[in-house]
Amino acid sequence: MTELTVLKKLPFWEQLSKDEKELVQASSSVRHYSKNQIIHNCETDCLGLTMVLSGELRTCILSEEGREITLYRLQQEELCVLTASCAVNQITFDTQMSASKDCDLLVINTAAFERLTRQNIYVRCFMYELLTERFSSVMWTMQMILFKGYDRRLASFLLDEYKRTGLRNIKMTHEQIALHTNSAREVVARMLKRFASDGLVAYKRGCITLKDIDALRQLN
Amino acid sequence: MTELTVLKKLPFWEQLSKDEKELVQASSSVRHYSKNQIIHNCETDCLGLTMVLSGELRTCILSEEGREITLYRLQQEELCVLTASCAVNQITFDTQMSASKDCDLLVINTAAFERLTRQNIYVRCFMYELLTERFSSVMWTMQMILFKGYDRRLASFLLDEYKRTGLRNIKMTHEQIALHTNSAREVVARMLKRFASDGLVAYKRGCITLKDIDALRQLN
Repeated sequence: MTELTVLKKLPFWEQLSKDEKELVQASSSVRHYSKNQIIHNCETDCLGLTMVLSGELRTCILSEEGREITLYRLQQEELCVLTASCAVNQITFDTQMSASKDCDLLVINTAAFERLTRQNIYVRCFMYELLTERFSSVMWTMQMILFKGYDRRLASFLLDEYKRTGLRNIKMTHEQIALHTNSAREVVARMLKRFASDGLVAYKRGCITLKDIDALRQLN
Repeated sequence: MTELTVLKKLPFWEQLSKDEKELVQASSSVRHYSKNQIIHNCETDCLGLTMVLSGELRTCILSEEGREITLYRLQQEELCVLTASCAVNQITFDTQMSASKDCDLLVINTAAFERLTRQNIYVRCFMYELLTERFSSVMWTMQMILFKGYDRRLASFLLDEYKRTGLRNIKMTHEQIALHTNSAREVVARMLKRFASDGLVAYKRGCITLKDIDALRQLN
């Protein structure tokens, strides 16, 4: 039985009937995962709907050779439906979720979540809206990284600048980098954010600092 | 003003109020597109929600060098929300839709579609469910083609068999091909279906016929 204060953080809580609220309360639990522990992949059982209470969760796809691409990271109060992918007929590809930091997750088990999405249009709509949002962001990532190789191109540009100047601080705006790498400001901003969350760079207005030269070289 | 018999094919028609039905009727039209004509891309105006009445519509992504990857094809009575992508905040990547055969499309303009998704939870849920389904299929495609190169590997295997036997008919089950190409039966089935819809092969139980050797070589 999970505490009400936690459950009230669910975005659809107020749209549940009294019975549904009781169902959620009886079907949920809080679980702890240690850093790097696998939370869900194609070999584990379907976990259910999850919400991050603390820490961070990382979702990635794996190639047959074991290469990983991070699709997204979830932080406090963000929900993950892919841990309940068996409850969503439309999902036909494999992903892996793991704890990128020690984390506590609220888990609503699959049976209860399935029942809610079947009987409550607001929960169903919430689920599909969340999936649309995540998938759209994932498609951007896949398009940029796999199709356009923009992660490689940006890493290569940053390393060239480092070689040219000998300095880890690269004083350029996103706009200037976009011009140099034949891309758009918005693309530079999103990819730098990704690099920063992977610990490769840090940035502030008009300046990018290379934090992990080796990892940047590996992308290259 | 579009005929009622056409509008009744909309999957959410029965869930509209009388006013909403009138809005749809007044805001929709039937448009004809010739084979290869662009229907929607990042440079055209947002068209609205579309439904294929006849013919076929193809959605693809374009690389900066102009390489195309087909994401999906839509046939009769299938709906496309991406032609109304400006009405969906979550969509942040670019796709292109074109007529792969001469086609007639029912178009509900963006303003009306936006209003419906805002005020009718069933239409909203329908839209996100459809997007989830399409995106999931797209992610499978992108994962297989861009990340795992499985289209290339399958084409290469089929061409090797052709070279070995001198025959365009390859008498193998999906299971056997999966074993030879280090993949799963389901992956083989989906990729062959894709090849068939692109005119590269034809298949029936236990036999694949190579229809376009040159195109298979280009994949390779």
